[in-house]
Amino acid sequence: MTRLTPNSSYSLILRIHLPNEPGMLARAIDAIALAGGNIGAIEMVAQERAFLVRDIVVDAASEEHAHAIVEQVRAVPELKLLLAEDRTFHLHQGGKIAIVGKTPLKSKSDLAMAYTPGVGRICLAIADEPERVYELTIKRNTVAVVTDGSAVLGLGNIGPAGALPVMEGKALLFKEFANLDAFPVCLGTQDVDAIVETVERIATVFGGINLEDISAPRCFEVERKLQERLDIPVFHDDQHGTAIVVLAALENALKLVHKSLDTVRIVINGAGAAGIAIHQLLTAAGARSIVVCDTHGIVSAGRSDLSDEKRSVAVAEAGDLTAAMDRADVFLGVSRGNVVSRQMLSGMARDPIVFAMANPIPEILPEEAAGLVAVMATGRSDYPNQINNVLAFPGIFRGALDCRARVVNLEMKMAAARAIAGLTSAADLTAESVIPSVFDRRVVEAVSAAVQQAARATGVTK
Amino acid sequence: MTRLTPNSSYSLILRIHLPNEPGMLARAIDAIALAGGNIGAIEMVAQERAFLVRDIVVDAASEEHAHAIVEQVRAVPELKLLLAEDRTFHLHQGGKIAIVGKTPLKSKSDLAMAYTPGVGRICLAIADEPERVYELTIKRNTVAVVTDGSAVLGLGNIGPAGALPVMEGKALLFKEFANLDAFPVCLGTQDVDAIVETVERIATVFGGINLEDISAPRCFEVERKLQERLDIPVFHDDQHGTAIVVLAALENALKLVHKSLDTVRIVINGAGAAGIAIHQLLTAAGARSIVVCDTHGIVSAGRSDLSDEKRSVAVAEAGDLTAAMDRADVFLGVSRGNVVSRQMLSGMARDPIVFAMANPIPEILPEEAAGLVAVMATGRSDYPNQINNVLAFPGIFRGALDCRARVVNLEMKMAAARAIAGLTSAADLTAESVIPSVFDRRVVEAVSAAVQQAARATGVTK
Repeated sequence: MTRLTPNSSYSLILRIHLPNEPGMLARAIDAIALAGGNIGAIEMVAQERAFLVRDIVVDAASEEHAHAIVEQVRAVPELKLLLAEDRTFHLHQGGKIAIVGKTPLKSKSDLAMAYTPGVGRICLAIADEPERVYELTIKRNTVAVVTDGSAVLGLGNIGPAGALPVMEGKALLFKEFANLDAFPVCLGTQDVDAIVETVERIATVFGGINLEDISAPRCFEVERKLQERLDIPVFHDDQHGTAIVVLAALENALKLVHKSLDTVRIVINGAGAAGIAIHQLLTAAGARSIVVCDTHGIVSAGRSDLSDEKRSVAVAEAGDLTAAMDRADVFLGVSRGNVVSRQMLSGMARDPIVFAMANPIPEILPEEAAGLVAVMATGRSDYPNQINNVLAFPGIFRGALDCRARVVNLEMKMAAARAIAGLTSAADLTAESVIPSVFDRRVVEAVSAAVQQAARATGVTK
Repeated sequence: MTRLTPNSSYSLILRIHLPNEPGMLARAIDAIALAGGNIGAIEMVAQERAFLVRDIVVDAASEEHAHAIVEQVRAVPELKLLLAEDRTFHLHQGGKIAIVGKTPLKSKSDLAMAYTPGVGRICLAIADEPERVYELTIKRNTVAVVTDGSAVLGLGNIGPAGALPVMEGKALLFKEFANLDAFPVCLGTQDVDAIVETVERIATVFGGINLEDISAPRCFEVERKLQERLDIPVFHDDQHGTAIVVLAALENALKLVHKSLDTVRIVINGAGAAGIAIHQLLTAAGARSIVVCDTHGIVSAGRSDLSDEKRSVAVAEAGDLTAAMDRADVFLGVSRGNVVSRQMLSGMARDPIVFAMANPIPEILPEEAAGLVAVMATGRSDYPNQINNVLAFPGIFRGALDCRARVVNLEMKMAAARAIAGLTSAADLTAESVIPSVFDRRVVEAVSAAVQQAARATGVTK
């Protein structure tokens, strides 16, 4: 089993009662360290002559690990553990977003303008001129985050309620990174036509539709049909968000190793939503040699088990993942943890580029790949070069909504990727910085501007 | 035509440039007064040696009236009108609600807890124990405000986009009065089964469904079918919100005139959503003699044009509204403006109670009814006794969600009405105060508590 480093997703607050004597805090810290916990902030909660109460933030590597840390602290006779709170569960209590008013409602006059009778004038203005819904309502800044709960993170088909915490999280990201108002729509159906019909019926309120965590191959059809029926942008983030950030990181990585997109051999492991979309975007950007693999090996034209989407990326050659990676320049993993070995990396071409993006466990851990790769990226925040959709979707929607784009087309996606790549100057480019930090505030503005320019250039704005 | 008094729904800001000389502000005010405008706040925007710029808030009675006021100001030679802004349109720019995060996203650690990978633990917890969706997501505080745009205010069938400003306004009221998070769902279908199916499919995220501005008789079927299929409360505010506030006001009004609900003759004019619901709730509360009228007169069992709902309230007698009102004790108007005359009031029993709730023009204006009625109420904020749903729905949903009621049943509605009525003590009760102000902060708490008690007593909580 891959042992991950402790991280905030398994973070605890330990509230500890200790005698007010020298060395007692050290006892607590020693116990936590002995159990392998990472200590964060330490706060004083109470201070008396005889005792202290302290809150200690501790990151663990798993729930079992958190439990072991707690037991280790409990075992110290001088300490009393008053509370061991799971910080992640605490943070999610009651959900992560709220709806607030933008205008006061303190007087009869406020009510008469915001609600009846004044609001009737606004309704009539929109009924007379439907375009004014963009001026006089929330539509122009509002995004639906739509899922059917069929492919939630790496957890699989856990349904709409289980998916809601992710969709709320996405709404949080939309607000924080792009000042967009996003609302979760968790559907109680996994039928393609029912999904399309439902989203179409509720679309009035929204300026854009972000599809999320819908499993392949249904996601392709849902997106296509919705985009045909709606005049607002529809964007499946698991496909295109990932593809855009991969293209951005890959362009910078290729500069470092002095190779060109149109000549490198690229292996994509994973033929789900992300894998297919990466193939499509890299091809549009000029890649000529891409081999896609799924759990049965190379997606080969000779196979009889291929969906339409897999067929569209099939190649003449056949074989397993090891065969695919032989002499490849680039490995892009959107599959499962631990499916790549050092030996497979050894077979790649000189200066291999490896993006091992499976979450939470990468296809191969950076420490394992060390020495065999020129550029390494993962989906994780605790290693360099995090390939994270949050670099793409906030700016994509900000741009698409601000220019009233009807779609997010291939040109807009490529422009977004190039805007992200372009934020790292040649002088600053290193093997550990092929992609900006998710907290780099320049990203949204750069992506939004590039997306708007591409939308206007391709005539898809209103 | 009924000339309404100037009010904030037609409010202007006039930005006026005037010479810095005595008497110039008086010129402006005289011009506005001459045109019949009501002057509100006056602010200084700029002050120079030679001139001043002032913003003057002016309420008008209609758009034409606002236009006439502007022209009157323009006609004063010393004044320059720099701007005449419609305050209601200004307030609605970009909509009236926003979605905000409740937890910070400033560090990798925040991201790891609120989003991936930490959020995966929350998803799994809900997938394992579905009830935890109430603990770990927004569901427990979130209400859908659902419309098909078929009966928006008094404006009729203007569709989902035209209805959105009202639904946003409703969300604003939910937040301000009950601290609930409400989101507008404006449906692009007016088919009963499609509405039911769509709401059912998106219900996961919501703790309750507020139906709004759906025309009769479809609204009855939509509500009934949705409540059958969902385990969260479904409440059509146009029906029950109105009925609850009417019952509350009527109970207090009857105390004033020393009459009893079970012996008075009540006329309900209007057999739409509100009229039918008022009949149902008053009957449950003990009323024995209710005559409902529609545009064809008394809803009489002998008529062949009745819907199922109208048939359920039909009486043996027949005739027009005048005949219905003859010797009636109570008139409840949920119909159209100006359909009741002084002569019709003269035919009523002693101490008539008249609730003329048509919006924006009541069935008869209080000034016209003066001297002929014992208690008068309207739907308007500029007369005493405003019958406003905002007295009911915030507390109803606050209570229903807080006790996890599966429905809002008749007992809960009656409890809500009695809680509202009970806020006015016998000593404080006058003909002009049969119902609390919408800004009376005790209302939500009283209604919520009463609703929860009734829900527990009738066994509909989880």
